[in-house]
Amino acid sequence: MIGRFKHCDDTFYGEVNGTRVTAKGDCGGKAFELSELEVLPPTKPSKIICVGLNYHDHAKELNMETLNEPVIFMKPPSAVIGHGGKIIYPKASQQVDYEAELAVVIGKRCRNITADRAYDVIAGYTCFNDVTARDFQRQDGQWTRAKSFDTFAPFGPYIASHEEFNPGNASIKSRVNGELRQDSNTSNLIFDIPTLIEFISGIMTLELGDIIATGTPAGVGELHRGDVVEVEIEGIGILRNEVV
Amino acid sequence: MIGRFKHCDDTFYGEVNGTRVTAKGDCGGKAFELSELEVLPPTKPSKIICVGLNYHDHAKELNMETLNEPVIFMKPPSAVIGHGGKIIYPKASQQVDYEAELAVVIGKRCRNITADRAYDVIAGYTCFNDVTARDFQRQDGQWTRAKSFDTFAPFGPYIASHEEFNPGNASIKSRVNGELRQDSNTSNLIFDIPTLIEFISGIMTLELGDIIATGTPAGVGELHRGDVVEVEIEGIGILRNEVV
Repeated sequence: MIGRFKHCDDTFYGEVNGTRVTAKGDCGGKAFELSELEVLPPTKPSKIICVGLNYHDHAKELNMETLNEPVIFMKPPSAVIGHGGKIIYPKASQQVDYEAELAVVIGKRCRNITADRAYDVIAGYTCFNDVTARDFQRQDGQWTRAKSFDTFAPFGPYIASHEEFNPGNASIKSRVNGELRQDSNTSNLIFDIPTLIEFISGIMTLELGDIIATGTPAGVGELHRGDVVEVEIEGIGILRNEVV
Repeated sequence: MIGRFKHCDDTFYGEVNGTRVTAKGDCGGKAFELSELEVLPPTKPSKIICVGLNYHDHAKELNMETLNEPVIFMKPPSAVIGHGGKIIYPKASQQVDYEAELAVVIGKRCRNITADRAYDVIAGYTCFNDVTARDFQRQDGQWTRAKSFDTFAPFGPYIASHEEFNPGNASIKSRVNGELRQDSNTSNLIFDIPTLIEFISGIMTLELGDIIATGTPAGVGELHRGDVVEVEIEGIGILRNEVV
């Protein structure tokens, strides 16, 4: 598992083994205890592409129909926070929801990748919380405002590689203050990851570090100030954020 | 007027006076003929925020209602091209439209800017063509796919400053193969620029070089392969792109 970390003024990628982190690159080989480090978002994406309505049960709970092609939207890089970062509840919204998602991290610049070659352009996988101001989503028609507030794109904590993680069959859960809210499996995705890579890379060039969030299962619900929300994916870990 | 240019392998900002360009920064003072240079997109935006339905006549021609708040969407940085860049007509689309727009260039990192302070965070203004696959816009509900194909965000040619340009009263036109298609004035914007800056910066942190495209007037229509499309704004210049 690979993460991005901060120690004093240094920012670096490190290999995570339990509670030990071994720095890569310039600081190569230096070892830290995880508790000494700030966990940063594992990439700095040039764009974040999200897939809507990609689990049947979630589409049903929103009274929306699933489509025969993926529906996509974007979050801006300014919305990114990492594990441990704080989700700021906007004054203007009356309903902010969590949405647990499996995210794909793009490993190289690419375009027009067919499904059978999709795994060649994937660096790995991480947890994503598609935080959404549900009131604005309903009101605007377009989802951009509802999805784009600063701090509304938490992802992390680390990136799991193909060798460490099977994206086709992993338990995905969310919890609020320790209480289970979503409990599904990535095998329930309507459009699987190779299909999404072919669809999205047929529209736009993907860059190293870009994020594709693959959609949320049923059980979405409200967050309140002071809540602690967790997204847990089997084989990756727990992304934990407090709402302030 | 400031532009970004390429000469051999050098990329630089330059001051444009008629057909002469004087380099700024490291190459400071060196002068070129415009014809010797490649014109680059005048910024490398971290995000491009677009405003929908911001002229009454355009909303009417799409049979859409204008709203009492701006509706926003985004284009990815991967869609950017500059003056002279080629718009690639996607195989998948049957209808690609031009949309002439006035764009605001953000001059510094900012958040929560009230309308009365909006001009403090604006670096200048440029022409924007919000190229749109109209068939996908109708089909998807969400506008992201329709607006996000590579080369669908041409902007330029240069950035005009406050001293050079009055954003509240400028003629805005588009032409296809020299034929006038859109002809309006930025005074017809439903939500003016200070209102848009307050609205958008209340949602997300804006970064140096970010682009806000302020919406298109009536007269949008189709492009075909081989067409040359121009967006002309009085006081800024002409953004010209060929469709291939």
